[in-house]
Amino acid sequence: MAVNPERLRERREAAAPDLALTGPGTPMGRFLRRFWTPVCRAADLAAGHARPIRIMSENYTLYRGAGGAPHLVDYRCPHRGAQMHLGWVEGDAIRCVYHGWKFDGTGQCLEQPAEEPGFARKVRMRSYPAREHLGLIFGYFGDGDPPAFPPYPAPERDGLVENPVPPVIPCNYLQCFENSLDEVHVSFVHRQGGSHQGMYDLPDISAEETVWGMIRFGDRDGKRRVSLHYMPNCTRVIVPPMAGFDGAGGWRELYLNFVPIDDETSQWFIAYHVGVTGAAVAPYLEKRELYWQKLAAAGPAQDLARAVMAGRLAFADIRHPDLVRVQDVAVQAGQGAIADRDNERLGRSDTAIILWRRIVARELAALEAGRPLKRWLPAPPEVVPTLGF
Amino acid sequence: MAVNPERLRERREAAAPDLALTGPGTPMGRFLRRFWTPVCRAADLAAGHARPIRIMSENYTLYRGAGGAPHLVDYRCPHRGAQMHLGWVEGDAIRCVYHGWKFDGTGQCLEQPAEEPGFARKVRMRSYPAREHLGLIFGYFGDGDPPAFPPYPAPERDGLVENPVPPVIPCNYLQCFENSLDEVHVSFVHRQGGSHQGMYDLPDISAEETVWGMIRFGDRDGKRRVSLHYMPNCTRVIVPPMAGFDGAGGWRELYLNFVPIDDETSQWFIAYHVGVTGAAVAPYLEKRELYWQKLAAAGPAQDLARAVMAGRLAFADIRHPDLVRVQDVAVQAGQGAIADRDNERLGRSDTAIILWRRIVARELAALEAGRPLKRWLPAPPEVVPTLGF
Amino acid sequence: MAVNPERLRERREAAAPDLALTGPGTPMGRFLRRFWTPVCRAADLAAGHARPIRIMSENYTLYRGAGGAPHLVDYRCPHRGAQMHLGWVEGDAIRCVYHGWKFDGTGQCLEQPAEEPGFARKVRMRSYPAREHLGLIFGYFGDGDPPAFPPYPAPERDGLVENPVPPVIPCNYLQCFENSLDEVHVSFVHRQGGSHQGMYDLPDISAEETVWGMIRFGDRDGKRRVSLHYMPNCTRVIVPPMAGFDGAGGWRELYLNFVPIDDETSQWFIAYHVGVTGAAVAPYLEKRELYWQKLAAAGPAQDLARAVMAGRLAFADIRHPDLVRVQDVAVQAGQGAIADRDNERLGRSDTAIILWRRIVARELAALEAGRPLKRWLPAPPEVVPTLGF
Repeated sequence: MAVNPERLRERREAAAPDLALTGPGTPMGRFLRRFWTPVCRAADLAAGHARPIRIMSENYTLYRGAGGAPHLVDYRCPHRGAQMHLGWVEGDAIRCVYHGWKFDGTGQCLEQPAEEPGFARKVRMRSYPAREHLGLIFGYFGDGDPPAFPPYPAPERDGLVENPVPPVIPCNYLQCFENSLDEVHVSFVHRQGGSHQGMYDLPDISAEETVWGMIRFGDRDGKRRVSLHYMPNCTRVIVPPMAGFDGAGGWRELYLNFVPIDDETSQWFIAYHVGVTGAAVAPYLEKRELYWQKLAAAGPAQDLARAVMAGRLAFADIRHPDLVRVQDVAVQAGQGAIADRDNERLGRSDTAIILWRRIVARELAALEAGRPLKRWLPAPPEVVPTLGF
Repeated sequence: MAVNPERLRERREAAAPDLALTGPGTPMGRFLRRFWTPVCRAADLAAGHARPIRIMSENYTLYRGAGGAPHLVDYRCPHRGAQMHLGWVEGDAIRCVYHGWKFDGTGQCLEQPAEEPGFARKVRMRSYPAREHLGLIFGYFGDGDPPAFPPYPAPERDGLVENPVPPVIPCNYLQCFENSLDEVHVSFVHRQGGSHQGMYDLPDISAEETVWGMIRFGDRDGKRRVSLHYMPNCTRVIVPPMAGFDGAGGWRELYLNFVPIDDETSQWFIAYHVGVTGAAVAPYLEKRELYWQKLAAAGPAQDLARAVMAGRLAFADIRHPDLVRVQDVAVQAGQGAIADRDNERLGRSDTAIILWRRIVARELAALEAGRPLKRWLPAPPEVVPTLGF
Repeated sequence: MAVNPERLRERREAAAPDLALTGPGTPMGRFLRRFWTPVCRAADLAAGHARPIRIMSENYTLYRGAGGAPHLVDYRCPHRGAQMHLGWVEGDAIRCVYHGWKFDGTGQCLEQPAEEPGFARKVRMRSYPAREHLGLIFGYFGDGDPPAFPPYPAPERDGLVENPVPPVIPCNYLQCFENSLDEVHVSFVHRQGGSHQGMYDLPDISAEETVWGMIRFGDRDGKRRVSLHYMPNCTRVIVPPMAGFDGAGGWRELYLNFVPIDDETSQWFIAYHVGVTGAAVAPYLEKRELYWQKLAAAGPAQDLARAVMAGRLAFADIRHPDLVRVQDVAVQAGQGAIADRDNERLGRSDTAIILWRRIVARELAALEAGRPLKRWLPAPPEVVPTLGF
């Protein structure tokens, strides 16, 4: 197993297992908290409702005021620790179910029905900025002011934006994100089922750091596929319709956010842009409805992925309308709850992964040393992913 | 968040996270083991049967001899560790299923069919006093002689005593017990469903230590609700009929014992006293039968509570014949497996909780220092809880 | 609890809790890895298929080449850690699903479609010898050359060899193996159901070390039952037909291998020899088919065992075609995930267990000290277990 010492050194530098750990106080956790993070589909939070969320190993309460504005506050009431989402939304405020303490969207306590007057104004919980973009609610969990919003541009072309149910994936977010940086996997993982026609030739991979993140190229016979990676965890890429979609809507643009729930679980918050307009919309929606019915009937792709990982099922045995999802989850979660990056053998096809790790490692080193970090700029809307063929 | 330093100091003293931990050797575990502890419904143990029980993180074998007497012995056979409840009860003795070693109710080995004569008399396992009261079997797991029995008086009025299935609650016993010390929660937690008509006005809470435990008062407009807390973990209180009971039997008296299974799981051993007599009994029993059928069909309240805690269901969506149970479990278990008492903001409505913690903290300090503990006396039967309106 | 000091010392020496721990680097793990270990039924691995296996807390990939030969290689691809069994078998090689790296049965990388030429020959994963015997696939996970194969002789009599589904048992392998050394348990554990007629009289137990392991005797009224224990974890014994078999095939010969999956889970790899020949075969196979249908309909014996261990069911309540399995699993797993051998009270009926522990403890001491270990010889095929009555 002789390895070129130069490459070995580069790999050691590239390997950064700490990038996987995002709990409070971890270097990567501190870094990710400096960006807007998707936390929920906008459609999953009706006005006047509250729900618990878990992001990077910390719990929060997300609620939407009567007027429609989303708010993010602490998970527990400061009184005796009841979960705030059990309570009621009243106007733009939320009231704890346990003893009726009421808080506004900034976390200030407004009422304590059974306590002495004057106690309420001394009590405050933390609140966190919350905004919406492309059908997703984003939160900001860092110190100081959040960066510019939105975190990445919307598509400029006409069409539909869709947000599928955000799947919970039984592994660390990083192996999911790194899979999205890895075009070569398509030629093998997704060959069965034939979803990615035209992409089974192996591309030459290259990548470049940009002012907003990283751009990645896959070159095949002079044709170039372009994918975007917005800092710190969103991949924008062209993908084929799901296996069960019968081609409706054609290849679409995917914004894929890989969000840590905790170190061993992640959630994918997704926005699709499907370029159908005018008369094409109605038949597309009909197809989509049928596909969704098939999908609901087929059960979660993650369950099948787990059976494959355990050896109880083989890919070849699976009929599922989102076979690509089954394949992706099995391969990524199959790397382990947190992939072992100390024993990798990276090669030239891993170029984009190596560059991304190097960028982040540089930023983490600056953060640790108290040096200024790179000031990421908003991405120009005209830089878009392309299929290249 | 400026707080009166005097109150802060008091709260710090009141806060005693160690009260939650009851495993062998812990201060609170040692204290609780000085009292009789409910371990099983009498009706759940037929003569000649054995079952495993787990109390304060330790396992035991409970069996009932052919003559009806309950016995508590070690969980495992001293030979090679088989579970004793797998074996057979023979008269007042129990025989291990693995190699037939037979023990009497004191733990003395009587027979070892495949061993040398004389070995049996050298082998003994531990046994623990066991008694019955109000439909419950109690055990004593402490050193030395147990205190007087019964641990608290039976109701003197005529009526029925009922023991519902003891629910297993997915959190520490202490937040359940403290909830029972907290009358204000009723005004909020149980408002939905309307079970507690007449109790939604906020009471003034006060509490006093007694020779048998603590008495608690909830004053509303000159009317006083009285609840009893027998040392160390039994609350006696007047409660409304369950939501699905259609009012049958009226408000009843509840003895509620909060028993740790381990530090993150507890079990409620309950005796209800329903004051129906004479001609009222038959129609009441009919209602009760219907209610029990509804309850069985509705599934465990704890399952619904878990869905609410996780944000998959809202209280408002739930129809369950014991809605109060769903509400109570969600709020209590929602405080976490073991509630964080270091970050509370207690107020005047928490008066009874503060006093109870102070009493126990004083006793634990004495126990640790080897000083004599308070000698709790039997409670007089005429001191009873009242509804007050 | 006065104990003869001499016996106490002997018991202390006999007690060897480390014998239960078999992870990599543990003394017992190192010892067991010096022998062939059953890992899978031959029938459960078709040509061209792969599956993950877990043996002694380590994961591997088992696959069968197109030509039928079994191969054992690492669990993960050395590139980026994908599970190898997700890939494809090609001829006698296996290809990773993630990026198409292809390895032969020795672990040598043959192809890396997206990498530079020359990288593949520098990459190798580990491989492990794999062989088949009596319907089971065996692997060798130790250093150096494996011992002679097969690890124990096949039956010489005519008849059928059967391999039931290998059950996963929720406890350490050692309490299962020790149960197989313990004939006295039959008189008690299996009395209910009446499976072992003729064996309920208590035997006198004795055991002797042999050049291939240990031979054990159970003497009753001048009749001797003989059982064999091949080093290190295979028991060969005569057993009655399962309760649901209606006696078909009569008492049969059982090879029972107790294989650690990890320290708290084990798997039994079993070969039965049923002495039916000629015209008796057809009616036997008919009975067997019916029995297998009953067994499939009855559900896993382990599930019932778990209910018994938790006190939710009693043995007397159970109707299951393999009641003996329910009884054995409940008793063995009921000793705990890893039985506590520090608090045993062993007696003369444990003679065989004590001798076996002593043999292994001696070998482990030699292994630790770097002294030569006993060189176990192949067992002569004519030494067979007998029922003795």
